[in-house]
Amino acid sequence: MEQRYSIITFGTSDMTRARSFYEDLLGWRPFMTEGMTAYDAGGFVFGLFGHEDLAKDADLEPTVPGDGYHGFAVAYNARSEKEVDELLALIGDKGADHGAKILKPAHKAFWGGYSGYFADPDGHAWEVAFNPYWEFTDDGRLKLPKAKSA
Amino acid sequence: MEQRYSIITFGTSDMTRARSFYEDLLGWRPFMTEGMTAYDAGGFVFGLFGHEDLAKDADLEPTVPGDGYHGFAVAYNARSEKEVDELLALIGDKGADHGAKILKPAHKAFWGGYSGYFADPDGHAWEVAFNPYWEFTDDGRLKLPKAKSA
Repeated sequence: MEQRYSIITFGTSDMTRARSFYEDLLGWRPFMTEGMTAYDAGGFVFGLFGHEDLAKDADLEPTVPGDGYHGFAVAYNARSEKEVDELLALIGDKGADHGAKILKPAHKAFWGGYSGYFADPDGHAWEVAFNPYWEFTDDGRLKLPKAKSA
Repeated sequence: MEQRYSIITFGTSDMTRARSFYEDLLGWRPFMTEGMTAYDAGGFVFGLFGHEDLAKDADLEPTVPGDGYHGFAVAYNARSEKEVDELLALIGDKGADHGAKILKPAHKAFWGGYSGYFADPDGHAWEVAFNPYWEFTDDGRLKLPKAKSA
């Protein structure tokens, strides 16, 4: 196995609402909208798929994860503290119109960065963070330290 | 907001077990192991963080998502059907020693590919898929179709 993943797919109970959040509010543009809705997130895919269909695809019961903790989070690393503030302000101001909400306002984080959280319309947690220790490549990927040897 | 994410973090109730799965069985190598364990997945980060600490970081109650559906899946796009079979066979043979299990054996998928699923030691769903329609860049990212216009 190569050390990578290709896709993260979020289950959604309301594709129209989820798309309105990611596309109308956040400005994302999909390359596929039939069945799965898929966005190119820099050579990796961010996908939206029906909640029940995603569970069934993995042979799992489609229990509803609900509003609380889903056991994971994704993070959007912003390029500045200002970008963190602007994105969370947008979601604070207009997120409710699309089913999203702030989970935690931006604050100085214990690890030296600046971070807040929002929940998307299906309750999936997104961190919005500025990490002063990690630089970006021109295409938005991260320049990361070398791996430790085994 | 740029159309990307930077990190996916999985909550784990047993960091030693989770690391043994990703590192000893799958061969991944972290670049950070204090607090968060973080792996460079091609300029994107795959992270492991304590289940309760991750919930608290987002101001959520640390309810346990359990063995069932967590509302999302990640996918590893393999380079061939053979690679799908080999990875799932490894997990079928030795995954239980590290707390992982097969959720769905590999099969021809309705969308034209070949796919199966496993659950990592904390029950997070991974799809292992070969998609004959998507090519890779040399560094393991996907060459994706252009986005539809708004």
